[in-house]
Amino acid sequence: MRDFSNDTTLLSLNTATVNAQWTLEQCIAGCARHGIGGIAPWRDKLDECGAARAAGLIRDAGLRVTGLCRGGLFPAATPAGRQAALDDNRRAVDDAATIGAECLILVVGGLPAGSKDIAGARMQVRDGIAALLEHARAGGMPLAVEPLHPMYAADRACVNTLRQANDLCDALDTDADGGLGVAVDVYHVWWDPDLEAEIARAGAAGRILGFHVCDWLVPTTDLLLDRGMMGDGVIDIPKIRGWVEAAGYGGASEVEIFSRDNWWRREPDDVLATCIARHRTMV
Amino acid sequence: MRDFSNDTTLLSLNTATVNAQWTLEQCIAGCARHGIGGIAPWRDKLDECGAARAAGLIRDAGLRVTGLCRGGLFPAATPAGRQAALDDNRRAVDDAATIGAECLILVVGGLPAGSKDIAGARMQVRDGIAALLEHARAGGMPLAVEPLHPMYAADRACVNTLRQANDLCDALDTDADGGLGVAVDVYHVWWDPDLEAEIARAGAAGRILGFHVCDWLVPTTDLLLDRGMMGDGVIDIPKIRGWVEAAGYGGASEVEIFSRDNWWRREPDDVLATCIARHRTMV
Repeated sequence: MRDFSNDTTLLSLNTATVNAQWTLEQCIAGCARHGIGGIAPWRDKLDECGAARAAGLIRDAGLRVTGLCRGGLFPAATPAGRQAALDDNRRAVDDAATIGAECLILVVGGLPAGSKDIAGARMQVRDGIAALLEHARAGGMPLAVEPLHPMYAADRACVNTLRQANDLCDALDTDADGGLGVAVDVYHVWWDPDLEAEIARAGAAGRILGFHVCDWLVPTTDLLLDRGMMGDGVIDIPKIRGWVEAAGYGGASEVEIFSRDNWWRREPDDVLATCIARHRTMV
Repeated sequence: MRDFSNDTTLLSLNTATVNAQWTLEQCIAGCARHGIGGIAPWRDKLDECGAARAAGLIRDAGLRVTGLCRGGLFPAATPAGRQAALDDNRRAVDDAATIGAECLILVVGGLPAGSKDIAGARMQVRDGIAALLEHARAGGMPLAVEPLHPMYAADRACVNTLRQANDLCDALDTDADGGLGVAVDVYHVWWDPDLEAEIARAGAAGRILGFHVCDWLVPTTDLLLDRGMMGDGVIDIPKIRGWVEAAGYGGASEVEIFSRDNWWRREPDDVLATCIARHRTMV
């Protein structure tokens, strides 16, 4: 396993971590100031900045872009809704390419409004990724399916285990050419009894495109906005990183913390300093 | 599938549904008043009432007891803690027998304090159930492993899928004599892509000991206390009931709703009337 104890270059800042405090430009400057090696913008912050301008700022700061968050949200109640989602995903692919992202993260979407048909939603997801894949391949932009915790199955993502994500990749990317893979976020998958096996499976196919870290707090007071800093919760992050690296992953570890009542209220330079300290010792 | 449209006898009231309003004695009287066929007490309410006295009240009211909630909580940081859990579970088995329960529900427990070792917790659960099983068999009390939603993996139950529960049964109950089985609560398992197959697997072994209903609300505002009334959320309950009955289940449907800010604040007779109406139309 790689030694992170004296490293910051393999740390990437997902902008959600300081979502409430900083613009993308401030995030880029902050990463540069702290010696953080990578960044992963969310699209709202990228749109504020403008993709072309952001690309220049990121390049000038010498940062890698470990992913763009997010494409996906494929299921919709109507064909027009699904087409709008696909169009938006194509723009996301283009923006990801503009800023030199290593992948476009796909949060695949949940149930269409009024629907209770999760199997149907999962078929819409498969069809949506299939439809997007050609455009993504043409643009050289790998798509990373991120399984989300089952508590988001209804409203954010109906792909809830790494096995499902691997199955999707097997079904849609039969020649495993690198155009479709998975993102492993410890928050979403730490509980899964099949995690080690499915990480190995993804790695064997060269499909681990991202590794995201934060922690699961006990108690967790909000389903969305109460993630913990690495080390403050119950996830054995080094064990999972070990599995990911044993499966061949050589990329960054991306810190993504949604924390309305704690980290989003702190001085953002302190947040970054804490991310660095925990990356050295708790990841 | 059985016709529930004119039925209340196959409905069972889990006392958690009116947890804030009624004692067990009031729950028993309420079920009798509304023609509800079954009841499933929680242990705190049973202890208040006294198991022997409760047994008489339940018998006099003509109610079936679809389960006692709950045994389990096996993992502990020390051998003394594990022994205390086992002793408490044996008392739960005895109380379940006293009130004529059809099974003792096992909420197996999460991580011991300070632990990040979920695989170890799962081994403690297996060992705990194995240790309890002899006492339960001697008392003729089936144990029902209830997989809990993965959002409870850390603090309530590290058995998070029906597959895990089935695997535990296969490992510990090799002759499938009915002493160990599973409880299927739609709230915990509705998202699982393997659900239909694992229900069939449990049914083929004669291991479906309980079927619990409520609904998953969008949005869900609390991880524990924001469950919905059947029909108010996104779970396709009839589909899951169809799978359970196709697998041979002929028992009751037990309504278990933790709802601090809604159903626990309502007049409890209205809550029961709503349970009955939704049982006829949404289950």
